[in-house]
Amino acid sequence: MYDIIIIGAGPAGLSSGIYASRLGAKTLILEKLTPGGQITLSSEIENYPGVCEIKSGLEFMACWPEQAKRFGAKIKSEEVKELKVENEKWIVKTHKNEYISKAVIVATGSTPKKAGFEGEEEFIGRGVSYCAVCDGFFYKDKIVAVIGGGDTALEEALYLSKIAKKVYLIHRRDKFRAAPSTQKKVFNTPNIEIIYNETVKKVLGKEFVEGIILSSNKEIKVDGIFVFVGMKVNNELVKDLVELNEWGEVKVDLNMKTSRKGLYAAGDIRENAVKQVVAAAGDGAVAAINALKYVEKGE
Amino acid sequence: MYDIIIIGAGPAGLSSGIYASRLGAKTLILEKLTPGGQITLSSEIENYPGVCEIKSGLEFMACWPEQAKRFGAKIKSEEVKELKVENEKWIVKTHKNEYISKAVIVATGSTPKKAGFEGEEEFIGRGVSYCAVCDGFFYKDKIVAVIGGGDTALEEALYLSKIAKKVYLIHRRDKFRAAPSTQKKVFNTPNIEIIYNETVKKVLGKEFVEGIILSSNKEIKVDGIFVFVGMKVNNELVKDLVELNEWGEVKVDLNMKTSRKGLYAAGDIRENAVKQVVAAAGDGAVAAINALKYVEKGE
Repeated sequence: MYDIIIIGAGPAGLSSGIYASRLGAKTLILEKLTPGGQITLSSEIENYPGVCEIKSGLEFMACWPEQAKRFGAKIKSEEVKELKVENEKWIVKTHKNEYISKAVIVATGSTPKKAGFEGEEEFIGRGVSYCAVCDGFFYKDKIVAVIGGGDTALEEALYLSKIAKKVYLIHRRDKFRAAPSTQKKVFNTPNIEIIYNETVKKVLGKEFVEGIILSSNKEIKVDGIFVFVGMKVNNELVKDLVELNEWGEVKVDLNMKTSRKGLYAAGDIRENAVKQVVAAAGDGAVAAINALKYVEKGE
Repeated sequence: MYDIIIIGAGPAGLSSGIYASRLGAKTLILEKLTPGGQITLSSEIENYPGVCEIKSGLEFMACWPEQAKRFGAKIKSEEVKELKVENEKWIVKTHKNEYISKAVIVATGSTPKKAGFEGEEEFIGRGVSYCAVCDGFFYKDKIVAVIGGGDTALEEALYLSKIAKKVYLIHRRDKFRAAPSTQKKVFNTPNIEIIYNETVKKVLGKEFVEGIILSSNKEIKVDGIFVFVGMKVNNELVKDLVELNEWGEVKVDLNMKTSRKGLYAAGDIRENAVKQVVAAAGDGAVAAINALKYVEKGE
């Protein structure tokens, strides 16, 4: 039996693993893909406090599993299929094994929805981005396209309009879903050009994005494409166990406790996540410390 | 006028500075001492996710101010004497200047109280510690002394008893203030030896702690001394502006918002802080992102 099982090995899960194991908890981390999480797709990370060298996401995450293992955490490449609790013990079923633990930290994150154009996956980290806070800074005085019509798309277009020289806001319908006040600000921003009733068909470019082709076959020169067409919260395992907010994110308190005893959440799966590596890692530490308190004292 | 003024340049304040400035906010960080915070007193840090090399606290924090400055944040060595708000503008008075901003992030931390024995300050990071989660791991199978009689002291003694070979629990009175259930666990732990009615007079040792002399002049061989005689929350600037909890820590929500509009808290000054660098840094990112939303949208 494990003290703590962590589901997901992105920054939140691996930080949980480092903390839980260093504090002496028998710790298992389960990850269906390679450890590291979404950030491994980024071409560079320059804003993680304490790491001055600019690294690719893959390089940057290389050390995390190593640290967790150094303190005794086990990491297994198994996909969790079912999570349930019986007599205060957690049963974690993967595609090939069943594990038991006293507490569980769920850190399965959320995944940005794809817009679905040709070259989208291929150019991730090379001009295609799903996060303006993360990557906006790289487009100072450049031209970017923002895809979407909801609150996030319009807010991020406004944010990017202060950095980029020009922002094309591309929406497949003839009006936006975003709040009227946000729409008004967008309409009043001279360097945002709105393109209604169009989708992106294809990326142009060799190594980096150089332009896009729209559904009308019109070509536009852009240096970057920001896609905001929604998030998929990876809550399948816990959605019937804990309280979620209206977007399907797991409700937590400041201790990363969910509504279910012994179950903690960390990183992008939880409500109000800012979707930044350092915040997910902070969550992981908080979840591990509090999960261990629960394991030891039942509270 | 600044967009955001950050008070305190430990991990929380510097992370806020990195995020706020990179997001384009005109940012000022004010610190009365050298940037880096309490962690600069640690002899080694090995559990900050993403930094695999084991570094001293001072080495580890060297890069943080550099990162903040790289994105345009200003750091000034000035002690803030007064903080007030007038017509939604924050006025920050230091010992020599007055600054104005739209939002403030307070990250002044908390300071562990000293026990007051000879050599205490001198041996910090070389055997004297105020944090079992941080440093306990370094005392595997060694002998440690824990000083204090409250909940924290007894809980940390229990935690350390699982790592260390032997724990001396030294209390200046003849009974503990900790919860009866915690006391019972301590009484039932064979490798905890309780020493009542004594204080520590002096550290013995050359480079690292080798022992202690008690008030009765008895000498004990120990490898480490953990002091848990209370925390001083550095809340002087904000205590009349925001809601505090019973320990004087600033109440916050998941967005690091305090009860006062435009004022955010990050790191050890806020309630439920786990007092770990990565968690403080996470708070800093969250506070900066939300403070900037407030600056831009007033919400």
